[in-house]
Amino acid sequence: MRWKESSMVNDLHNYKMVLTYDGTNYSGWQIQPNALSIQQLLQESLSTILRHETIVIGAGRTDAGVHAIGQVANFKTVRDLDLFRLLGSLNGLLPRDVRIKNIEKITSSFHSQYNAISKVYHYHLCLNKIQSPFKRLYSLQVIEPINLELLEEAVSFFVGTHDFTSFTNEPSTGSVTKDPIRTIFKLNIAEEQDGICLEFEGDGFLYKMVRNIVGTLLEISGGKRSVKEIPKIFAAKDRRCAGKSAAAHGLFLVRVDY
Amino acid sequence: MRWKESSMVNDLHNYKMVLTYDGTNYSGWQIQPNALSIQQLLQESLSTILRHETIVIGAGRTDAGVHAIGQVANFKTVRDLDLFRLLGSLNGLLPRDVRIKNIEKITSSFHSQYNAISKVYHYHLCLNKIQSPFKRLYSLQVIEPINLELLEEAVSFFVGTHDFTSFTNEPSTGSVTKDPIRTIFKLNIAEEQDGICLEFEGDGFLYKMVRNIVGTLLEISGGKRSVKEIPKIFAAKDRRCAGKSAAAHGLFLVRVDY
Repeated sequence: MRWKESSMVNDLHNYKMVLTYDGTNYSGWQIQPNALSIQQLLQESLSTILRHETIVIGAGRTDAGVHAIGQVANFKTVRDLDLFRLLGSLNGLLPRDVRIKNIEKITSSFHSQYNAISKVYHYHLCLNKIQSPFKRLYSLQVIEPINLELLEEAVSFFVGTHDFTSFTNEPSTGSVTKDPIRTIFKLNIAEEQDGICLEFEGDGFLYKMVRNIVGTLLEISGGKRSVKEIPKIFAAKDRRCAGKSAAAHGLFLVRVDY
Repeated sequence: MRWKESSMVNDLHNYKMVLTYDGTNYSGWQIQPNALSIQQLLQESLSTILRHETIVIGAGRTDAGVHAIGQVANFKTVRDLDLFRLLGSLNGLLPRDVRIKNIEKITSSFHSQYNAISKVYHYHLCLNKIQSPFKRLYSLQVIEPINLELLEEAVSFFVGTHDFTSFTNEPSTGSVTKDPIRTIFKLNIAEEQDGICLEFEGDGFLYKMVRNIVGTLLEISGGKRSVKEIPKIFAAKDRRCAGKSAAAHGLFLVRVDY
C-alpha cells in the first residue's frame, strides 16, 4: 500500500506558474474566510479548468494591498496539460488584475515556497509634493523631507545575516517558533521618476519584515530616530522597538529565484 | 450701472490650473446629473474654499474613463488668493485620483476652452498577449495582430486640415451646428513598453474624435478595412462609415497649449 501511494504521488504532474497581480482589491495571497484572496481565485479557476479540487502553493504570502510582478506558485494534478491552452484558459477565467505570465512543467519535488533561494521585493516611495494619481495605489507618498545620506547609512545596517525578530509581526510565542534569522543580500536605493525605490534581495522575509524595515528607515531618514538605534533595535528582539509598518501599497514582490 | 457691472467683472481675479486625473471612477469632465464628474468635484472643492459658488471651465471635455496628465481649467473669484495655500487646500479636499499640479493668476480675459490653440492626446495600445494588471486601466489591449506598415500609412491620411464629421458623435442636426473642420498637426506612432502610443496634436478635437480615429485605425491595421477607404469615409461625412470607437481607458489628455 505504501508503495502504491508513493507511486500515485509520483504520477502527479507538477506545474510552476509565474504571475503578476494588482493587490489593491484583494485580501492578500493566502486564503481566509470572508475575503477574496489571490490563492482562492487561482484555486477556483484551476479547479474549474481541471475539474478537481486544486491546491495552489505560493512562494510569498503577500499581504492585503501588496502587489506582485513575479510571484511564483505551483500546483499538482493527474492531468498532463497543454501549457499554451492552460495559460489561455486561466487568464480567460481570472479577472484582469491577476495575470499568469508563464506556466511550465517542473519536477514533482518542486515546492514554490520551500525551494525558493532568494526573493526580490521593491518598495516605491514618492517624494514629490504632488503624487501622480496614476501612482497613488503603487507608491507611498512621503511628505516630510528625507535625508538621503542618513537613509544610505541606515540601509547598510540591514544587509547581511541578522535575527529579524524586531522587524516581524510574526507571533514568536506558541508551540511553533519560526526561525527569525534571515540574510539580506542586497538593499539598494534606486532613483526613479518622482522618488526612490528600495530594492530588497534576500533568502527570505518574515511576516511584514520589508514593510517594518521601510517604516523604520523612514523614521531614521526623516530625523525622528538616530541611525545608532538600529543595533539596539536588532538586539532587543522586540517588535515594539522598531518603527511603524509602511503602507502595503508601496510594496511589490518582484522575483523569486530557485 | 453698466459701467459698474463692467468694473465688477474686471475686479474678478482669474486663475488657471493644470490638473491630472485618473478618469476610471468618474463620469468624465462635464457636470451631469446622477454621476460624479471632475468638474463637479473641482467646483465643490473651490466653492468650499472660496465660500462662494464657483464655475470651473475646462479646456477639454474628457469622457467617462478618459484620463488627464495636463488638463487645463480656469475659474474666477473676487478673492486675491495665496497660490501656494490654495494649491495645498485644493489637493487636501480632492480625492487622490485628482491632483492639481499648478495654479497661477492669469489675465481676466483668459478662457481655458476658447483660447486653447493646440491639444495633445495620447492613446495607449497594449500589443502583448498578456497585459500587465498595472496597465489594464490605462491602455487598450489589442489581441489581433496589427500591421504596423498599414498603421503608418493609414495615420498619414488624418494629418492636416479635414472635415471630421465622419469621426465625431457630435450631433450635426439641431439649431447649432459645430464647425467640423479641424487640423491635426501631428499624429505619431511611438513605441513603448508592451505596445505603442498614438500621439495626436491638433488645434482641437470634436466629441469622441480621437477614439473614433483610433477605432478606425485599428480596423485598418488589423486587416478588416483597406487604407483606401479612408478618403471615402471622410467624404461621406457620416459617422456610420467610420470604425467603432476605441475604449475610453486608453486615452489621455496630455497637454493644452495657449
